[in-house]
Amino acid sequence: MNKLGFFSLAGAALVMCSSANAVKLSASSAAQYAQGTYPEYFDLLKLPNDAIVPADVRKNVEFLDAAFRKRGFVTKQLENDGKPMLFAEQPNADPKRKTVLFYMHLDGQPVVPEQWDQKDPWQPVLKRRTTDDKWEEVDSAKLFNGSVDPEWRVFGRSSADDKAPIMMLLATMDAIKASGVAQGINVKVILDSEEEKGSPSINKVMSANKDLLRSDVIVINDGPMHATNQPTLIFGNRGAAQARLTVYGAKVPLHSGHYGNYSPNPAQRLATLLASMKGDDGRVTIPGYYDRVKLTAADRKIMAAVPDDEAAIQKRLGIAKPDKVGDNYQEAMQYPSLNVRGMASAAVGDKVATIVPDKAVAELDLRTTPESDANYLTKLVETHIQKQGYHLVTGEPTDDDRARFDKLASFTYQSKGGNAAATPMDAPVGKWAYQSMTEAFGATPAPVRIRMMGGTVPTAEIVEALKVPFVIVPLVNADNNQHAANENMRMGNYINGVRTLYSLVTSPL
Amino acid sequence: MNKLGFFSLAGAALVMCSSANAVKLSASSAAQYAQGTYPEYFDLLKLPNDAIVPADVRKNVEFLDAAFRKRGFVTKQLENDGKPMLFAEQPNADPKRKTVLFYMHLDGQPVVPEQWDQKDPWQPVLKRRTTDDKWEEVDSAKLFNGSVDPEWRVFGRSSADDKAPIMMLLATMDAIKASGVAQGINVKVILDSEEEKGSPSINKVMSANKDLLRSDVIVINDGPMHATNQPTLIFGNRGAAQARLTVYGAKVPLHSGHYGNYSPNPAQRLATLLASMKGDDGRVTIPGYYDRVKLTAADRKIMAAVPDDEAAIQKRLGIAKPDKVGDNYQEAMQYPSLNVRGMASAAVGDKVATIVPDKAVAELDLRTTPESDANYLTKLVETHIQKQGYHLVTGEPTDDDRARFDKLASFTYQSKGGNAAATPMDAPVGKWAYQSMTEAFGATPAPVRIRMMGGTVPTAEIVEALKVPFVIVPLVNADNNQHAANENMRMGNYINGVRTLYSLVTSPL
Repeated sequence: MNKLGFFSLAGAALVMCSSANAVKLSASSAAQYAQGTYPEYFDLLKLPNDAIVPADVRKNVEFLDAAFRKRGFVTKQLENDGKPMLFAEQPNADPKRKTVLFYMHLDGQPVVPEQWDQKDPWQPVLKRRTTDDKWEEVDSAKLFNGSVDPEWRVFGRSSADDKAPIMMLLATMDAIKASGVAQGINVKVILDSEEEKGSPSINKVMSANKDLLRSDVIVINDGPMHATNQPTLIFGNRGAAQARLTVYGAKVPLHSGHYGNYSPNPAQRLATLLASMKGDDGRVTIPGYYDRVKLTAADRKIMAAVPDDEAAIQKRLGIAKPDKVGDNYQEAMQYPSLNVRGMASAAVGDKVATIVPDKAVAELDLRTTPESDANYLTKLVETHIQKQGYHLVTGEPTDDDRARFDKLASFTYQSKGGNAAATPMDAPVGKWAYQSMTEAFGATPAPVRIRMMGGTVPTAEIVEALKVPFVIVPLVNADNNQHAANENMRMGNYINGVRTLYSLVTSPL
Repeated sequence: MNKLGFFSLAGAALVMCSSANAVKLSASSAAQYAQGTYPEYFDLLKLPNDAIVPADVRKNVEFLDAAFRKRGFVTKQLENDGKPMLFAEQPNADPKRKTVLFYMHLDGQPVVPEQWDQKDPWQPVLKRRTTDDKWEEVDSAKLFNGSVDPEWRVFGRSSADDKAPIMMLLATMDAIKASGVAQGINVKVILDSEEEKGSPSINKVMSANKDLLRSDVIVINDGPMHATNQPTLIFGNRGAAQARLTVYGAKVPLHSGHYGNYSPNPAQRLATLLASMKGDDGRVTIPGYYDRVKLTAADRKIMAAVPDDEAAIQKRLGIAKPDKVGDNYQEAMQYPSLNVRGMASAAVGDKVATIVPDKAVAELDLRTTPESDANYLTKLVETHIQKQGYHLVTGEPTDDDRARFDKLASFTYQSKGGNAAATPMDAPVGKWAYQSMTEAFGATPAPVRIRMMGGTVPTAEIVEALKVPFVIVPLVNADNNQHAANENMRMGNYINGVRTLYSLVTSPL
């Protein structure tokens, strides 16, 4: 097995590359192992998994517990207030190999069945796109019997998010076993049961089972791939903090004829205050807001290489020009944000009254970065508000506050939704994954490397318990309608997901 | 009857002053004539008068038609789509005298009975304030039999707004007749039937009956007196215009993690746009907004003389410092306003989502002045918005708009609620009213003269049909709970109202 050599193993076309020692699984072999899991996949999708119903969660756990045991894993259901998480590990781990903990989640978003183009979101349906961009059903027996078009999709809740990656891993283990190829790593798996509820207990459960979960790195298989469907590697995600800014006017709404021009208008003042925080180009003007983020030339190069079609993005959003926080989309996501996610003062539309409102509220969300956490950013905002002459109160201002201070506001904040988390782009885990994926799919196009995604996932909570490096390897199509009606999984992604995982598992770290 | 002389007429203590030839009615005489109308007043208050029910309006019209005829007036119900207005005039008008048209309205606001501290807002209740600032009922028979405490109040819908002034005028005519004193003017009366609905048809009805209504001046008896309860004269009121400003972002709300820092936030942009229109001191910064208002030294002197207790107003409102549009409250009301009466973008509170909103709306109301009408002011605002780089669209922006213009907004406006109206403070009608009231109550304290009140009443629509000068002479206590639950009329004001009207009717113009 030379550097570019090929050789076949019984029953599967495999390629080994010495550079990372990953073993490549051909598309046709991957399709074959994927096919073996489709009936199981459909059965899994028939199990409702909204974590609001613990009994439903337990059915999914039991099903997957059996599925991993069938592949020779030793399993343990980790106690979590009636909604256990599932742990699985291969017995007789090779101490010379590194251990990778794969994180996925078995719970799903709630459903609103009437919004779906199928009878029941819990009854998966195979579909193909027709010429007029609509979808028509395909008999799933075809899929089970070995026919597959990569463009076919399985529609159903959690078909992509996040049951598909679990099934891809099971198919991968089947392929490993059948091919007899040596693993490069020891595999452990943790299946979260409350990810769609914000993973409120993942940290607690993982901390309580630290010895069991002990591993060298964590691979998170969640979220969508890059829109191009190129192999995608994500090194971090922003965190989230929320704040509420309320500016107070008079005690009660006032007649705008008798008090307009006299009693200060809190909506106007809120507007002025918000305007003082950001320029028209979308850049935060509060001193220090972006200062802690230092992008290297290497970072910028990797980000510029992400094949984002920004013209297409802008067209889809319906905007002529993006904010100028970064030179491109990827760069913009590296900085903390300060976003007005909701704003209200008195009423608009049918209920509008000719008054001077008594208060005005802006709901803010701040996306944080590892360098600029929620505490740092919210303090900057708070100090800025005070510098604009505001006296900050807790709750409604008292009569005494009102008599003493011209400008009254309250500013409350909380970090909810997780902290930012990042793995350096040159960390070994990243190199390992990048090389494995390059070997699985070739160097052109190269895997997409995303330094930090803009959204917040509970990465920090997951990795904090074990304090090991991580990388996010999303495996599902970007247009999967995640969280919404008509969630779907593209079969081409399912098969490529098996190829990706096969390379990771066979590649020494 | 020399300049300072007194003499009595049978049955009433009257004083005539040559300066304006008004005849003064003593408080005790006024109380006596007022008393004669209380049973009628109570009966009138028992007639529901929300103009949404035309049959109710007609009952009030019939009642008052009879009341005016009983006082020798000739009446005519003016057709108004089933809700007639009532016209009344004295027959045999003296052509040597000027004719004054008194405007009042017989309709009232809707009621929410459960908000009232009495069984039925349409069953008037006499009450007195107890030591603990609560109210207890007083047998109304006392009032009918001649006992009266000026602090007693009659509670009921329209007890003040605006049935009391109608009854005061009837009591005045009774006093004139009983005293045999010569009138100084000919009296005509128009009773609006839809004032609380914005007088949508007053102009049409008055224009259709121009000959009948022909008069030299109009006296409007509506609205509350100055808070001090001093005799009050109002020379004008601001007009009202409404505008809606919508700033557009992306086509749909976006995930704030994935698009915060990239897709422009319309709430933020709306804030910046509003902030560009007004300073933190509440002054509009759009060039030209205040320029047309020219206050003379005489105007300022009269305004400074209004006994507003601004410290008390600010304490009541709960503000430490008013906006700086004028040097005092009265001056602030002389200028046009630009008020954010409502603002909204996405949701706040329980329904808040972590999104970049797709649009943001500010509902504005602009109070206009005779010098700066709705068209002038809204055009200034519109031009200002365009100068900030916005492309204005009608309705939702098209895809083409979105592709071409970075900043998109819509700005719609309408003048609804009436134009501003003003009578010069040195006009004869003002002098006549001021002198009459000074003679009725003495020179200290002098009647309060308000150049222009901040709120909008349909004065412009009323006076426009006849194109004659007007003055507003409010007669009811400022704390009457107008439009709200527990509307009430203070008996001292009722009696003083009779004195005021008596002076006006006996004073030649």
